[in-house]
Amino acid sequence: MAGSVFGTIFKISTWGESHGKGIGVVIDGCPAGIPLCEEDIQVYLDRRKPGQNKYTTARSESDAVEIMSGVFEGLTTGTPISLIVHNKDQRSKDYGPIAELYRPGHADFTYDHKYGFRDYRGGGRSSGRETLGRVAAGAVACKLLAELGIEVKAYVSSIGPVSIDRSRMDLDEAEKNALRMPDAVAAEEAQKYLDQCIKSLDSSGGTVECIATNLPAGLGEPVFEKLDANLAKAVMSIGAVKAVEIGDGTEVAKSLGSQNNDCYTTDAQGKPKKATNHSGGILGGISDGTTVFLRASFKPTPSIAQTQTMLGRDGACHESSIHGRHDPIIVSRAVVVVESMAALTIADHLLLSMASRMEHIKKIYGTDHLK
Amino acid sequence: MAGSVFGTIFKISTWGESHGKGIGVVIDGCPAGIPLCEEDIQVYLDRRKPGQNKYTTARSESDAVEIMSGVFEGLTTGTPISLIVHNKDQRSKDYGPIAELYRPGHADFTYDHKYGFRDYRGGGRSSGRETLGRVAAGAVACKLLAELGIEVKAYVSSIGPVSIDRSRMDLDEAEKNALRMPDAVAAEEAQKYLDQCIKSLDSSGGTVECIATNLPAGLGEPVFEKLDANLAKAVMSIGAVKAVEIGDGTEVAKSLGSQNNDCYTTDAQGKPKKATNHSGGILGGISDGTTVFLRASFKPTPSIAQTQTMLGRDGACHESSIHGRHDPIIVSRAVVVVESMAALTIADHLLLSMASRMEHIKKIYGTDHLK
Amino acid sequence: MAGSVFGTIFKISTWGESHGKGIGVVIDGCPAGIPLCEEDIQVYLDRRKPGQNKYTTARSESDAVEIMSGVFEGLTTGTPISLIVHNKDQRSKDYGPIAELYRPGHADFTYDHKYGFRDYRGGGRSSGRETLGRVAAGAVACKLLAELGIEVKAYVSSIGPVSIDRSRMDLDEAEKNALRMPDAVAAEEAQKYLDQCIKSLDSSGGTVECIATNLPAGLGEPVFEKLDANLAKAVMSIGAVKAVEIGDGTEVAKSLGSQNNDCYTTDAQGKPKKATNHSGGILGGISDGTTVFLRASFKPTPSIAQTQTMLGRDGACHESSIHGRHDPIIVSRAVVVVESMAALTIADHLLLSMASRMEHIKKIYGTDHLK
Amino acid sequence: MAGSVFGTIFKISTWGESHGKGIGVVIDGCPAGIPLCEEDIQVYLDRRKPGQNKYTTARSESDAVEIMSGVFEGLTTGTPISLIVHNKDQRSKDYGPIAELYRPGHADFTYDHKYGFRDYRGGGRSSGRETLGRVAAGAVACKLLAELGIEVKAYVSSIGPVSIDRSRMDLDEAEKNALRMPDAVAAEEAQKYLDQCIKSLDSSGGTVECIATNLPAGLGEPVFEKLDANLAKAVMSIGAVKAVEIGDGTEVAKSLGSQNNDCYTTDAQGKPKKATNHSGGILGGISDGTTVFLRASFKPTPSIAQTQTMLGRDGACHESSIHGRHDPIIVSRAVVVVESMAALTIADHLLLSMASRMEHIKKIYGTDHLK
Repeated sequence: MAGSVFGTIFKISTWGESHGKGIGVVIDGCPAGIPLCEEDIQVYLDRRKPGQNKYTTARSESDAVEIMSGVFEGLTTGTPISLIVHNKDQRSKDYGPIAELYRPGHADFTYDHKYGFRDYRGGGRSSGRETLGRVAAGAVACKLLAELGIEVKAYVSSIGPVSIDRSRMDLDEAEKNALRMPDAVAAEEAQKYLDQCIKSLDSSGGTVECIATNLPAGLGEPVFEKLDANLAKAVMSIGAVKAVEIGDGTEVAKSLGSQNNDCYTTDAQGKPKKATNHSGGILGGISDGTTVFLRASFKPTPSIAQTQTMLGRDGACHESSIHGRHDPIIVSRAVVVVESMAALTIADHLLLSMASRMEHIKKIYGTDHLK
Repeated sequence: MAGSVFGTIFKISTWGESHGKGIGVVIDGCPAGIPLCEEDIQVYLDRRKPGQNKYTTARSESDAVEIMSGVFEGLTTGTPISLIVHNKDQRSKDYGPIAELYRPGHADFTYDHKYGFRDYRGGGRSSGRETLGRVAAGAVACKLLAELGIEVKAYVSSIGPVSIDRSRMDLDEAEKNALRMPDAVAAEEAQKYLDQCIKSLDSSGGTVECIATNLPAGLGEPVFEKLDANLAKAVMSIGAVKAVEIGDGTEVAKSLGSQNNDCYTTDAQGKPKKATNHSGGILGGISDGTTVFLRASFKPTPSIAQTQTMLGRDGACHESSIHGRHDPIIVSRAVVVVESMAALTIADHLLLSMASRMEHIKKIYGTDHLK
Repeated sequence: MAGSVFGTIFKISTWGESHGKGIGVVIDGCPAGIPLCEEDIQVYLDRRKPGQNKYTTARSESDAVEIMSGVFEGLTTGTPISLIVHNKDQRSKDYGPIAELYRPGHADFTYDHKYGFRDYRGGGRSSGRETLGRVAAGAVACKLLAELGIEVKAYVSSIGPVSIDRSRMDLDEAEKNALRMPDAVAAEEAQKYLDQCIKSLDSSGGTVECIATNLPAGLGEPVFEKLDANLAKAVMSIGAVKAVEIGDGTEVAKSLGSQNNDCYTTDAQGKPKKATNHSGGILGGISDGTTVFLRASFKPTPSIAQTQTMLGRDGACHESSIHGRHDPIIVSRAVVVVESMAALTIADHLLLSMASRMEHIKKIYGTDHLK
Repeated sequence: MAGSVFGTIFKISTWGESHGKGIGVVIDGCPAGIPLCEEDIQVYLDRRKPGQNKYTTARSESDAVEIMSGVFEGLTTGTPISLIVHNKDQRSKDYGPIAELYRPGHADFTYDHKYGFRDYRGGGRSSGRETLGRVAAGAVACKLLAELGIEVKAYVSSIGPVSIDRSRMDLDEAEKNALRMPDAVAAEEAQKYLDQCIKSLDSSGGTVECIATNLPAGLGEPVFEKLDANLAKAVMSIGAVKAVEIGDGTEVAKSLGSQNNDCYTTDAQGKPKKATNHSGGILGGISDGTTVFLRASFKPTPSIAQTQTMLGRDGACHESSIHGRHDPIIVSRAVVVVESMAALTIADHLLLSMASRMEHIKKIYGTDHLK
């Protein structure tokens, strides 16, 4: 069924395979009147680009985005916004054993089983390149959110055994180092760890954290379309993510009610405010006006050069290894993908929540004629 | 917007508040021809019933379900199945300060902020009692899955600092002890820990794990409606859940590719099989035919009898405590809720996946006339 | 699949069979803060009640509605509103040949073919009694619309060969006569025609027209969720409707551009206004602020007492007749069903359209903090 | 909100404006394994191309479609199929008064009112050129249907006052004459009528009929997602359509039950069959296995060269005329658009109906392991 569509009002439809003609997305339901140009989107795409350093693949991808519709005289028109990134290199080449083998940790077996066959060129639709469509759409969602002062920002919080030290945390640092860690010391340590991984033909997992600030209270639709439920879906739908945590996440299971409850206190001006934010800015599935916080755990890149036992289409086991250059770590490139999925979710909820109170509706349509 | 509707083909619409006239659900899209009676559903509801032991509240809830439509001569007809549980006790009583105070860890503030006011009686729609609708529907989903031999089973894997020992794990034990832990030793230890919590007027978090066996390979719709993405949403939408993990979950972030990849091996008959299942039965968002595994982390019950600083509707801070008996732990009652949400998700994906291949379609409609 | 759910934001889920335990609807996504009581809904249900005169069936149906959830202290809370009408008479009786025969013009054959069997008691889910759920929900939609001064009003415009004379049209008259025609002369003539039908054991078709006034311009979402497209779907989904027309409807096919275009003119105050309204208040699928107009054509009640050739479940033809009292005409009872479907569609579009412009969004969430 | 998405499982998302960079569609949910190439789609697009004769505009549009994704080695892969038609001519030109005036019968006013401004170049998104996306997707739906032997075929049944004579009806003739009427005599008469229209700077309405043959019984999901309800929505969403009729359509309102009921009779082999098909192949919203029949009424092209009174953005009335060459009739080009919308609706229902019975589900997934 239609699994490449995301969102209810701010709805996106992504398409494209790794080695096909291109990757793209149609955004339907973006409100009219938002300033938008290709450069706004390109800066997001550039952040997921590989080849920026030795820890990401050396393939040269320029990935220039083109706005095909939905923008007129620099503003969104309210009609569908079609975005395309043409693939540069679609030369047919010998894909060799990949066509016949199911690589461990990849979706080769499941795609074949679901659809009867698969586009095996570079992973086809299950390639990480698919996220280009998410990021292009996410950039537009971020533009919408920025109109209301809402910001969504992600960073790498751990790589393998190396975690950031929260006392040293500096968000500006995150975009300065190649690994996108907001702690220069941890970043350096992580780089040493990755050098080790590369040497041993291995790859590493890691975590990405994401914060969203300045959200109005009231976003989220109980009981199934809760803000946290949809953030969990959005982020879990990114390839390689195996866990999503909101606020204190898995830590809450070991906590006590007296520790985990966010009580109130009074600020310098004597106004009440939450003393803590264990809940990650969401209560009962609805934003409470404080910072929304989530964490995603990414598995290690499954493409490693070591010899592994693979299953063949012939039903037999084969010893084989995967050639080509591969990222030993993907969290650094995934930072902008997590931001995008969070922004798309929040944007959709923002539009949905407008209809929650009769007061809001009267603000839009007016009732002067009723007097 | 419509947040109480879940699913695409097997679609449920839940309703009801804690102290209203009742709780219910309408299941639309359940296939015709499944044997169904009230007792099938009642056994599921009884598993979430409180008052079974001293660790859950002593309120007597009988919660008898009534099938109002959609079943004829013992079989589902394909039309909507309406299920109702009438609330026994709706006496108006003095809700006292709860109407005016926002309890820490509860959704009082966010509901008021979203909707302008709230039904404060017993938590209204944000009460745990809302899950009755989920479980009633989940029981029907389980009946559907059972027709194909698919089983969904959850249990408590930890309470506060006490975790089950996997070497002692015995799923039959889980339904024998009051805490629903598949390890009698851990259950005893956890009971001591909870006695401590009760004495100190506190509550504890915990984890629930869920396994689904006998799923066909091929369920899940990339790239947004992946099976794991929808399981994450389903489970995260349960009140108090703050983290969802699939397979190895958060552990993957510290893992290496060579450890985390599920390679193949040969079984006693020489047939290939997965040597490990770090992926939790899902690759690329699609079931691979092995056991699906997930874990949910629940926060401690926010209702504790200690005095806490609360925010008032008047905008000021108040010291107050929450009266009444409350569960010091909810994971044991939540086991069947997690099962239900997993079953609902899998049932919907089962129906959705039928349309993924032209071959399947020809199997249903036939093409004899084309020859 | 889930075919008993209607709407995107203002979403309803209906359930119930003719001779089951009851009929009901869950309304999810109704905004908070609308005054609502059972009497508001009952007046709508009473308008579709049979037994008011000799032209509708003599069965006594009291059909009292009960609000089960979603209303607190007289106001909608924003949570699901569950409405139930208990069926009075569910005595098991001998349904005789109906269980084994497919009645011409009824859905017996198609239900059996789709689902493998059917609840044949009184037509089951395909009975006209199903519309109770639509009308109960429609009454709530009308309350929402009334808050903005929007009114939806339907009436019978023809019965068999007898049409209203538009020069005599008086909307107040429509609710005064038993046939709900806004022209007392035509109503009298139609009654004579129906007396004839009854005598010859036959039934008659007819048309219902519906007008919606005071709609804001801007409702409708091109290119598929156009206001007229969704009105067409909503009204065509009513059993027995075989045609839906917007504005001039089928007449446009014979018209010229110079006749059909609604040009502008100047009113008494010199302000521009549409000189005509051939378009029925909708252009490009979006309301233009003038009166929305639609017409539905209903087929004659298929239940007639004449002997007809029916198909049996045994695959053979049978001569048989349908016993019991049946309406010789249904348009008069269907008036409130058409109103309800139109109101549900407009309410949903009203909520959807709020998100069409960034300006609207800023009105709700404010941007003071950005200055 | 997202109004450019259509369908539930076979879901399309169209984009593009008349004078933008191109027009396109993403088809998500198309089953894997259907042979598909660009030529399959091009033949459909060519049928809506103008410039084929003097009755359609002389603009040269080549409109070559490109498949961007979702097809591998000549077969659909089950992943999104992205189709693009690049616009040839996007030279910026002087749109003159059109930017400031609301043309009668066009969506200029309503788009401006809904979105705050509009892309006025050639009608922007409200241009008839938008239907290219529908037709490209419809061609793929037709390929899917053809795998099961289902055919969807439309033709022009009337132009202004000239209707086809059903005794002369010949479907093969429909694609031979420029007006696409299945009656050469009527086509000639209609051409004379149109010559008259052109001379008087006017335009004409008309009707398109569509038949779908070889549908299995059982398609359609009561009570809101009925097959006829969704056909009505699909066809009413085409610009200029003001009425949709199923089977006997508006005629049923004047009919008697004894005439309108489709009784059964016995064929030459003694097998039962429907004696008539007043219902248009649909009963209770579900296909009955006989031919599905619908009719759409199109209003006259609103673009006429006569001087008309238009409303200005300045709030005043203006006398103006619309320059450029315009079709005096659109039904002939719309034939393939009606076919496309019908095919998309039927394809989606075909996939949805697979899940209606437990028997079907067992056919796909098997239950051998349960024995």
